[in-house]
Amino acid sequence: MRSTLTSWLQEQPLVECLRLQLPRPSLEDNTGDLDRLGRAVKLKGFTPLQFNPTRIGEFSRQIRREDFHVTAVLGRGDRHWQVIDVLPGDSEHHNLGFAVDLGTSQVAFYLIDLEQRQLLAQTSIANPQISYGEDILTRILFARQKENLKTLQDLLIEAFNATMRTMLAERNLSAAHVYSIAIAGNTTMSHFLLALDPTNICKEPYIPVANRFPFYHARDLGLMVHPEALVYVFPNVGSYFGGDLIAGILNSGLHRSEEVSILVDVGTNAEVVLGNQDWLIACAGAAGPALEGGVVERGMMAAPGAIDRVRIDPATLEPSYHVLGEQKPVGICGSGLIDLVAEMFSAGILTIQGKINTRLGSHRIIETPDGPAYAVAFAQETGDGRDLCVSEIDIGIFLKSKAAMYTILTVIINKVGLSFSDLKRFFVAGTFGNYIDPAMAIRIGMIPDLPVETYQGLGNTAGHGAAMLLLDRSLLQDIDRVCNQVTYIELNVNMELMNEFRGALFLPHTDPRLFPSVQIPESN
Amino acid sequence: MRSTLTSWLQEQPLVECLRLQLPRPSLEDNTGDLDRLGRAVKLKGFTPLQFNPTRIGEFSRQIRREDFHVTAVLGRGDRHWQVIDVLPGDSEHHNLGFAVDLGTSQVAFYLIDLEQRQLLAQTSIANPQISYGEDILTRILFARQKENLKTLQDLLIEAFNATMRTMLAERNLSAAHVYSIAIAGNTTMSHFLLALDPTNICKEPYIPVANRFPFYHARDLGLMVHPEALVYVFPNVGSYFGGDLIAGILNSGLHRSEEVSILVDVGTNAEVVLGNQDWLIACAGAAGPALEGGVVERGMMAAPGAIDRVRIDPATLEPSYHVLGEQKPVGICGSGLIDLVAEMFSAGILTIQGKINTRLGSHRIIETPDGPAYAVAFAQETGDGRDLCVSEIDIGIFLKSKAAMYTILTVIINKVGLSFSDLKRFFVAGTFGNYIDPAMAIRIGMIPDLPVETYQGLGNTAGHGAAMLLLDRSLLQDIDRVCNQVTYIELNVNMELMNEFRGALFLPHTDPRLFPSVQIPESN
Repeated sequence: MRSTLTSWLQEQPLVECLRLQLPRPSLEDNTGDLDRLGRAVKLKGFTPLQFNPTRIGEFSRQIRREDFHVTAVLGRGDRHWQVIDVLPGDSEHHNLGFAVDLGTSQVAFYLIDLEQRQLLAQTSIANPQISYGEDILTRILFARQKENLKTLQDLLIEAFNATMRTMLAERNLSAAHVYSIAIAGNTTMSHFLLALDPTNICKEPYIPVANRFPFYHARDLGLMVHPEALVYVFPNVGSYFGGDLIAGILNSGLHRSEEVSILVDVGTNAEVVLGNQDWLIACAGAAGPALEGGVVERGMMAAPGAIDRVRIDPATLEPSYHVLGEQKPVGICGSGLIDLVAEMFSAGILTIQGKINTRLGSHRIIETPDGPAYAVAFAQETGDGRDLCVSEIDIGIFLKSKAAMYTILTVIINKVGLSFSDLKRFFVAGTFGNYIDPAMAIRIGMIPDLPVETYQGLGNTAGHGAAMLLLDRSLLQDIDRVCNQVTYIELNVNMELMNEFRGALFLPHTDPRLFPSVQIPESN
Repeated sequence: MRSTLTSWLQEQPLVECLRLQLPRPSLEDNTGDLDRLGRAVKLKGFTPLQFNPTRIGEFSRQIRREDFHVTAVLGRGDRHWQVIDVLPGDSEHHNLGFAVDLGTSQVAFYLIDLEQRQLLAQTSIANPQISYGEDILTRILFARQKENLKTLQDLLIEAFNATMRTMLAERNLSAAHVYSIAIAGNTTMSHFLLALDPTNICKEPYIPVANRFPFYHARDLGLMVHPEALVYVFPNVGSYFGGDLIAGILNSGLHRSEEVSILVDVGTNAEVVLGNQDWLIACAGAAGPALEGGVVERGMMAAPGAIDRVRIDPATLEPSYHVLGEQKPVGICGSGLIDLVAEMFSAGILTIQGKINTRLGSHRIIETPDGPAYAVAFAQETGDGRDLCVSEIDIGIFLKSKAAMYTILTVIINKVGLSFSDLKRFFVAGTFGNYIDPAMAIRIGMIPDLPVETYQGLGNTAGHGAAMLLLDRSLLQDIDRVCNQVTYIELNVNMELMNEFRGALFLPHTDPRLFPSVQIPESN
């Protein structure tokens, strides 16, 4: 993240604090106080300029009190600049902003110094709406009642305020110096934040209340920073293509490159964007749950206690693993599952159909109520004193997810008449992108058989993209362009798709020519 | 006024109500609800478009409730359109607005139907701030304390609300259908209305808080019409050149004509604008009080009980007069005074020096504690049972005002190297302009000796100019242009000015060649 920030050194932030010594009035120059400020600001290129009418009395008193030596805090709006505040000219001011990735499960906050171009702090909290439903659909149903929609909004606003307050307090910074907040969320989360009715998002023809949101001020939403702080909510392209992905595109630079690249964000859905500076095509599909660890019995998020790395000795069939947070394992996260399935396959424990070979005579291969399973950790090693097994059923579910992922990638690349080898970069967003080992994912046929250096994990692209906007207002134009350029394709379930999917259910694929680098174990 | 309105039939109003049948969403056209509205509105040319972020939830609910058949109420802002409201598509809506002339003494309201282009009602009230000072300076001193400034604002807002409520109720109209208010006032009155500190207006170098005001919304000021109604306050050019005069210029059309014309507004000050479509020059001076009836002992405003016309029989020296409101006289207004002095002069009662000829032996010429006087009405004819006399002292004060007026006109016409005969039109604004008889004013040397048809009384130019803006938004550009074009000249008291003034103190002038049409009575 830090390196991302410094690469934007020449860029101009969304909010600027301008120190001004205004020429004093005279009979020869009898411009009004406020017009005098406006003139000085416009001369520096901040035009057109808007004043909030309810603040101009205060601003002009400040100008007089400070004897025409003031700091103007200017925020970039949709098509104009607005005067956020007029402060004494001499005092030290910060120019702070928050970038927020508003996810369905997690909300990540980045506190940025826009003047020093520094990331001051970052933190992540669980989305407090989870108490009203783990998944989006439950929350949408709950929000049908207007009071409930307000409840969901209030939960978010309170969580925003509490988190921002703590982050600022830890660094002795004042909320009054926070002049900008950029928020990237999926379409539904953005609707919840703004208390916009999400009902039609999940009903054909899937229409959000708004794709592009006007700039808000902090006071409009009850955010406890400077009341006039700009609040920018990233636009959506549709119900299934949210602002988080727009921010992700910004972060990847996909839209500024001559070469064709792909960006994959694995969340609840797998969201895929393919393109370059001239065109962008996107689609999404339900590939995520198993990869995120949500469906497999012992699956979990990449959090302390999760096994994120697995190796299996092909001779002994004994595993070794790494646990996040240096503690006893309690579950296995997406990257751990990928490793596990890849290693089970290479060691001959799994067939190309994804069946466990029960005739291998290993004490790791056990019979459970869910059928045969592989014990990654026995009860005495685990955090909860239970065997940590992954069953054939779990693997079946997981293979559906990996097949869905590969199918989506195949469909989108075919759609534009390219092949995977045309991709110069393959960006993988999200926590998942940070943990996944591309070599392993290739071995199971989840992602195309490209040189591993093609793959690049980007981390929280939504949060980083939002932070980039705070530091570089020219990205507002990029966002406009991206929104206009993206063609979103619906994955209609047809025969071609089903055939693709069925082929991809195998390890690595029914057509091994697609994965020349993958060695098929002899046992198959 | 009615004729003024109909002449703007082709023009487009400041607010428009657009009836829209939006295409219903489909999988092929999955634009968001609000974006769908925005698209339809922009297609009709209302672009760029801004939504108030706090209203978009409500707007989108309305769109769904009305099944995409809605009326969008659109208001023209500084550089963009804003969505004031989204209403059901079928119901009948009015598009009402108020034009207000915010004067120091009187506030005039015009209720306009922007769609029918009709003046529905008009009324005038005393400025309620009068209780805190008849004149501007007293009120400015009072307003130095922030609470007092608020008090003065509250008085205005309450009076606005009460007056508008009554005007609407009388016609069974709803305040919710008032989407625009245009207000033209002098610089200080505009500051009071907006609670902006007026302290520096009357202190060298005479700097207002603001010359140009942003658009307000009704809710910002507590005006009880549609909360999002546009409130436009006409800009000032400086402390002594207010929005009332800008509106007056609009009303006169001075700034759109090839020919050179002059506009004179006699209020507390005499304000003068000279120019054409290419240039505008303005100045102001204290010429008004006596003309408005404020200083002469029995002087009064043009109101019921005021003598507004006087004739004197040169043979008998007996007067005949007309009283406003068909009642007994209680005072004499500006036009009455002009008539009286002109007739006294023609009848030989007044010398060219303005002295009363006491040797004429008329019972009308009487001796009072203030010296010789002429009795326009004896006690038994008057409303208050007192003789209505005008003394030599009164006439002396009056002559100073008329001399000041002629001096100002001379200075400004000399400044641009023209002579009075170059003027194609001489507009006289204000109540005064409606009542004044140009032939009489010429006879006393108050205004230049031009053909009487050159003179045109415009009535309330500020109020009419404000009404014109409601009906023709293209005048926003005119206002910008006028503000940039006006050169305001300070009348520095120098030898030339004093000589001009001294010459103009006579009847009609020390240089009778300036008034060839005026017959000097033989007695002089």
